[in-house]
Amino acid sequence: MSALDHLTQRLAKIPGLGPRSARRAVLFLLKRREALMLPLIEALREVSETIQPCPVCGNWDVTIPCALCRDLLRDESTICVVEDVADLWAMERSKAYKGLYHVLGGTLSALEGVRPADLRIDALMARVQSGNVREVILALSATIEGQTTAHYVAERLTDSGVKTSHLAHGLPIGGELDYLDEGTLTAALQARR
Amino acid sequence: MSALDHLTQRLAKIPGLGPRSARRAVLFLLKRREALMLPLIEALREVSETIQPCPVCGNWDVTIPCALCRDLLRDESTICVVEDVADLWAMERSKAYKGLYHVLGGTLSALEGVRPADLRIDALMARVQSGNVREVILALSATIEGQTTAHYVAERLTDSGVKTSHLAHGLPIGGELDYLDEGTLTAALQARR
Repeated sequence: MSALDHLTQRLAKIPGLGPRSARRAVLFLLKRREALMLPLIEALREVSETIQPCPVCGNWDVTIPCALCRDLLRDESTICVVEDVADLWAMERSKAYKGLYHVLGGTLSALEGVRPADLRIDALMARVQSGNVREVILALSATIEGQTTAHYVAERLTDSGVKTSHLAHGLPIGGELDYLDEGTLTAALQARR
Repeated sequence: MSALDHLTQRLAKIPGLGPRSARRAVLFLLKRREALMLPLIEALREVSETIQPCPVCGNWDVTIPCALCRDLLRDESTICVVEDVADLWAMERSKAYKGLYHVLGGTLSALEGVRPADLRIDALMARVQSGNVREVILALSATIEGQTTAHYVAERLTDSGVKTSHLAHGLPIGGELDYLDEGTLTAALQARR
């Protein structure tokens, strides 16, 4: 296989790029060798060589522990539990949370054979028991797997003495009522203020 | 800026990936460091170091001239003129053409200031005059710019003694009539067989 086909195949594995857009991406990069392709290679190389998972929270960063875990201004008494690093980044972008994080690395799933031991749940328990944690916020997806996982983690935390909380369900900001599914609408109604 | 943000920004410049999907792509790659990220870096590096534009036809390849120009089985008497290497690849995937190519590198555009000298038109004239070319197929887009360019190239070729032809317009295979725009429908009707 040619080097171009080889690169196209690798790029096509990235979510969001299919075989067609990968081909377009290869041409796009070839035409911008100095301006984009070489800097992209350098950026990929740097990330692949320097970024590691934080052993404390599971975030990706150049330092161990990560910048969030080392930040003395963050509230150590709260841990926000998320499925994935992408969720942690989404929370950070909201700028609404100033505590620490714990990335589980997925959700429990009987179908896909994901058991509690496959997630970073024991590590969460250890953090809760050792530190001065007062609240664990379970910011998991409002899917069956997400809620099963949230339920399991909350159960494990019952004897630890820390408060557990969940994200509120409801109407998204800017969302229109008649586009909302019934489940969310019911939840929003029940949690009305 | 962090190495992760840096990489996300670079990836987001690729067409088909916005800032959001670039972020997802970074996480996807981080989780598959050995299986995907490192091979992708290697594939990018190889392409960036070995692939060059063919000085004859404008295709991208590891050899100069490119494999298509060196292929003795291809019909040297026909040159298919395309705007971009992506169009050349599309023609090759169709397996319907066995002649040579000439990539113009764009289309004439008064709006974007693309003049004949900015395209590889002189190089096409030189190929037509020097060789045993009998037909030039103008496989340019059915846009105003594409057709203006085709018209200009055909004009330049009038005194060369080679035949010029255009791709037929019509109903795409598998296309439904009532989804077709009027322009194409008119063209398809006029070119009915």
